[in-house]
Amino acid sequence: MNNVPIKTDIELAHQRIQDHIHRTPILTSNSINKIFQSKLYFKCENFQRAGAFKMRGATNSILSLSNKELVKGVATHSSGNHAGALALAAQSLNTSAYIAMPSNAPKIKRKAVESYGGKITFCRPTLDDREKTLKNIVLETGTTFIHPYDDYRIIAGQATCAKEIFEELKEVDYLLTPLGGGGLLSGSSLSTKYFSNTTKVIGIEPKGADDAYRSIRDGKIYPSIEPKTIADGLLTSLSEKTFDIIKENVSEIITVEEQTILDAMYLIWERMKIIIEPSSATVLAAVMENQDQFRNKSIALILSGGNIDIKEFHV
Amino acid sequence: MNNVPIKTDIELAHQRIQDHIHRTPILTSNSINKIFQSKLYFKCENFQRAGAFKMRGATNSILSLSNKELVKGVATHSSGNHAGALALAAQSLNTSAYIAMPSNAPKIKRKAVESYGGKITFCRPTLDDREKTLKNIVLETGTTFIHPYDDYRIIAGQATCAKEIFEELKEVDYLLTPLGGGGLLSGSSLSTKYFSNTTKVIGIEPKGADDAYRSIRDGKIYPSIEPKTIADGLLTSLSEKTFDIIKENVSEIITVEEQTILDAMYLIWERMKIIIEPSSATVLAAVMENQDQFRNKSIALILSGGNIDIKEFHV
Repeated sequence: MNNVPIKTDIELAHQRIQDHIHRTPILTSNSINKIFQSKLYFKCENFQRAGAFKMRGATNSILSLSNKELVKGVATHSSGNHAGALALAAQSLNTSAYIAMPSNAPKIKRKAVESYGGKITFCRPTLDDREKTLKNIVLETGTTFIHPYDDYRIIAGQATCAKEIFEELKEVDYLLTPLGGGGLLSGSSLSTKYFSNTTKVIGIEPKGADDAYRSIRDGKIYPSIEPKTIADGLLTSLSEKTFDIIKENVSEIITVEEQTILDAMYLIWERMKIIIEPSSATVLAAVMENQDQFRNKSIALILSGGNIDIKEFHV
Repeated sequence: MNNVPIKTDIELAHQRIQDHIHRTPILTSNSINKIFQSKLYFKCENFQRAGAFKMRGATNSILSLSNKELVKGVATHSSGNHAGALALAAQSLNTSAYIAMPSNAPKIKRKAVESYGGKITFCRPTLDDREKTLKNIVLETGTTFIHPYDDYRIIAGQATCAKEIFEELKEVDYLLTPLGGGGLLSGSSLSTKYFSNTTKVIGIEPKGADDAYRSIRDGKIYPSIEPKTIADGLLTSLSEKTFDIIKENVSEIITVEEQTILDAMYLIWERMKIIIEPSSATVLAAVMENQDQFRNKSIALILSGGNIDIKEFHV
């Protein structure tokens, strides 16, 4: 897939993956609606297989391989949810996933990849060493590299999440998604263009990792340098493919404070009794910090994942 | 309601309360099924209003009052989920709830009652002082005392949870519920008798609070004396009404270790991404400790509630 996904690409991706992913529920909370005087619809990708929306893109990318490629398997470098999702998708589709993983990756993410049968090669935690290790894996095994977001197959896969939202809710005023490398946001913005008439799409980024906010404002991609945020899924920079789609289809980027991310996460834990990871909480944090903008609006919020070791979680 | 609920009583209770409670989802987890080689169906009362199944009985009892009683409100003594549920049910139905609450009640439970507009009178944490305080409240206000479980209106209300299970799943081999005072278990066993043909009902109790296990074994009610368990919803003794129903309709009581309760709770948090309180985890703990009995069986498990201050939770 060499072009920005068109409507049919996303529809085909959805057909292709639907037997391999969960159709996640959209939950509401009367008590949270009351607090913000708005109608919030939480799309629960924390309940997705492998605990994150990443399963959609990973599955679509593997199912888009040729038979020859499929036999050899896939590879990526990641310390996060993309690694786990790619490993589980590969296992479910009877092929192999090779992961270059920095030696300081969180234990829970490593355990997940291992439990899904992923083949880990550890490397030093620098982008340089991750890429070198990955290159060696690809050379030795002949596998296909699947980038976590700079890939139209991935973007089309992530787009199916917002497609499901519009199938169920028809129109909403806003769609809010967390923003890291931009795979979820770019896919969501495409689905909004194709499957909705009036919804505005907003990407939410931690203030401590606001490279995408600055990139869109200034019209050029800034790398994410020493980002500081508890939202460990949102540390990466935009890529060319995600940058271009976001620039054209997203109406706003909102940045949020660390404390608000924590407050929002605790509120969702307490009132909705569901476990979300900090990255997911950014979307409610944006509503918390911008109550005038969102009052009396209908808002779909994508809770991107639930992979947090809650037993070990202390701030 | 002066007799053990018959089928019609439970059907009427369900009709009466259905606009005031959530019909909670039944969730499954492929990965947990794989571990235990069985089909587990989790009925998620942690998603119930006020965060626990107690909302069913509380709502049914208030809706069963005469108009004259309704105006005066309801009262109870409780440090737990019954207090919160009664307060929320009273607020929703435009009446008042008066709660005699021991001074050492967990902060989160106190906050819940307050946020639902319940009127708290604090007392010393002895049964004697709780009952005396309650008696004074009832004398002064003319409200109706609603016992947390020794009340057929409460039992019929709690029974609607298992009724929903059988509406969706038809038959299962086993239905497992946590066991404290016996309201949920006795109601569930009645619904099983009326709405299922073959399901066996089992009550699960922590070993450190096994008064009901001993009571059923020996045919007489033992009080729960200094129970020691993390499952703070299961500290109470059986009552005459719950004892009689359980004796007749429940096939077994299983007791579980504290460590297994914790392991089960963490497994549900991790794999299902939902927040449950320790009392809810006893049902999966029973499957963990009795894998031969439950292998290749279909089992409905009631997750009774999700009221735990997870931020503050350390073992």
